[in-house]
Amino acid sequence: MAEQHSELEKAINTLVTKFHAAAANNGPTLQTKEFKNLLASQLPNLVKTGGSEQGMGEVMRQMGVSDGEGITFKHFWGLIQSLATTQHGLISKKVSKSSCVLL
Amino acid sequence: MAEQHSELEKAINTLVTKFHAAAANNGPTLQTKEFKNLLASQLPNLVKTGGSEQGMGEVMRQMGVSDGEGITFKHFWGLIQSLATTQHGLISKKVSKSSCVLL
Repeated sequence: MAEQHSELEKAINTLVTKFHAAAANNGPTLQTKEFKNLLASQLPNLVKTGGSEQGMGEVMRQMGVSDGEGITFKHFWGLIQSLATTQHGLISKKVSKSSCVLL
Repeated sequence: MAEQHSELEKAINTLVTKFHAAAANNGPTLQTKEFKNLLASQLPNLVKTGGSEQGMGEVMRQMGVSDGEGITFKHFWGLIQSLATTQHGLISKKVSKSSCVLL
C-alpha cells in the first residue's frame, strides 16, 4: 500500500522538489537562468513585477544573492518565506475585517 | 474562469491556510492544544517522535516557544523550514550517491 501523506507534508515536498528539479545538473545551486525559468513557471505573478532584468536583479538582491553567485536552497527559501509571510498577513487582515463587520 | 495557480503557489497557500485553520478563534496565535492537533493531523511522523509530553515540549523549545506562550506563524514557519531543509538534504544526498554509482 502506498504511504499516505498529509497536505502539509505534500506542500513541503513540493517546495523542495521544485527547487531540486530546476537544477539541470542536479547540483546544489541554480544558475540565474535556471532560477528565472523556475519563477516563470511556478511564480508567474512575481515574474510580472520582477520580469525585467532590473526587477529580476532586485528580487535576487532581496534574496541575498551576490552577482554571479549560484542560488542555494537557503536563498530560495528566503523568497518562499517572504511570500508565505505576506500571504499570512493578507489572510489575517481579511479575518480581522470580517470580525469587525460582525461586531 | 477560475484563476490557475502553480503547484508552488498552492504549496505556499497550503502552509499558510493550515496554520490559520488550526486557530479556533481565527486569532494570530495557536494555543498549545490547537498546535498539537495540527501536528497530529498534518505531521504524524513528527508526532511519533515528539508524541510524549516531553517530546512535544522539546519540539516547541526548538521552535523558540516559551512556556505558556501562543504559537505564532513565525514559530510554525521555523518548524516548516527545518523540515524542508532536512528533506532537501536527504534528496541531495540521494542524488550524490546515485551519481557515485554511475561513475
